[in-house]
Amino acid sequence: MIYELYYWPGIPGRGEFIRLAFEEAGARYRDVGREPDGIPKMMRFIAGKMPGTRPYGPPFLKAGRIVLAQTAAILQFLGPRLGLVPDDEVSRLAAHQHQLTIADLVVEAHDTHHPLGPSFYYEDQRPESRRRAAEFLKQRLPKYMGYFEAVLGANRASRGKYLVGRGLTYVDLSMFQIVEGLRYAFPKAFGRYEEKIPGLIDLRDRVAARPRIAAYLATERRQAFNEDGLFRRYPELDA
Amino acid sequence: MIYELYYWPGIPGRGEFIRLAFEEAGARYRDVGREPDGIPKMMRFIAGKMPGTRPYGPPFLKAGRIVLAQTAAILQFLGPRLGLVPDDEVSRLAAHQHQLTIADLVVEAHDTHHPLGPSFYYEDQRPESRRRAAEFLKQRLPKYMGYFEAVLGANRASRGKYLVGRGLTYVDLSMFQIVEGLRYAFPKAFGRYEEKIPGLIDLRDRVAARPRIAAYLATERRQAFNEDGLFRRYPELDA
Repeated sequence: MIYELYYWPGIPGRGEFIRLAFEEAGARYRDVGREPDGIPKMMRFIAGKMPGTRPYGPPFLKAGRIVLAQTAAILQFLGPRLGLVPDDEVSRLAAHQHQLTIADLVVEAHDTHHPLGPSFYYEDQRPESRRRAAEFLKQRLPKYMGYFEAVLGANRASRGKYLVGRGLTYVDLSMFQIVEGLRYAFPKAFGRYEEKIPGLIDLRDRVAARPRIAAYLATERRQAFNEDGLFRRYPELDA
Repeated sequence: MIYELYYWPGIPGRGEFIRLAFEEAGARYRDVGREPDGIPKMMRFIAGKMPGTRPYGPPFLKAGRIVLAQTAAILQFLGPRLGLVPDDEVSRLAAHQHQLTIADLVVEAHDTHHPLGPSFYYEDQRPESRRRAAEFLKQRLPKYMGYFEAVLGANRASRGKYLVGRGLTYVDLSMFQIVEGLRYAFPKAFGRYEEKIPGLIDLRDRVAARPRIAAYLATERRQAFNEDGLFRRYPELDA
């Protein structure tokens, strides 16, 4: 099976949560959106012109005849197939719950630069972005990251080293990407905050040091954060 | 098994998507947040003081020893147990994907009155709400609802009568709630738009006429929309 990932080229975005799972597992996959003619191929699925469940938007996965959209649903589907989630139901439910909470955090991080919605450019909503970003950094970020730090510390099965069960899951890979994204977007504010979440920072370091992840991060398959993506560096938003 | 739903009292909110599934199935459930001492009980889970996976916030479900948060994850868990999703994997994946897209729509509908984030009151973000609501009604609402109208029409297994498979699923119940919420929040703008989505409006009518749903809607268990919830009626936002 060669999995096919469909996502916008040029940004890590939501596709990156899925790429990290493929890379850690050593899975065979195509990143179709980055191939020649990838975008027209992707648009045919979104337009409902291809077999399988129609995606509302990218990322979506093609696995044989299955077409599946929504980042957290894709990771839930891939987790058992890639060996990135434990076998028991309680752990699998917990992993999916946490991935959905990460998805909520991602929306709020994105909305720091798009509080008036995705149809306006950032340049048309700069004062509003400053208000929303300040509130995100003061209230929302500590609430989300404090929650995950507590979940990590309370996970006795891994002695506080992984978020679900005894070992690495796709949720840990996604948390690595969250820390990387927050470091990129808010180097000052998140830099000051990091000392409050030592467990998550240690988790980030252990994920980055895993052989397949470390190798992946050095390739051109890993795309840099930039000002077209979810996590953007606008210094005026970094209080 | 008596299921326990934990959600804020006083609003339909995200809890309502789960209530509709229980009610259609005739399941035994407690709406713990609405019981005396319900909120302190709920807060003990959120504070991580109870066994089971810690929720970031409500709604969450307790089913025996399983504790599970995130609306779409709860419905995915309940679907097979309540007979509200087909047996085959492709249909179950499609149902969950659609529920997650509904969740995305719910966030955007909520953000029409909270573009600067949940920590500020609506009264402190009225001009911004007007801009975001106008964009929601012009761009985002038609994109989401047009997508679901197309998904419905393309579902040959039900001859365009249900969103997934041959018969009613929890996704159809949630779509009923979306139409009700949009009618409440935007009676003028959504009222004008309804003629573009005849299939979804017909689905809404057929859900409302189902005996258990019709009976439920007449009880005090069904809470009215109001200006503390996801869908709020602020006339100045209804272009």
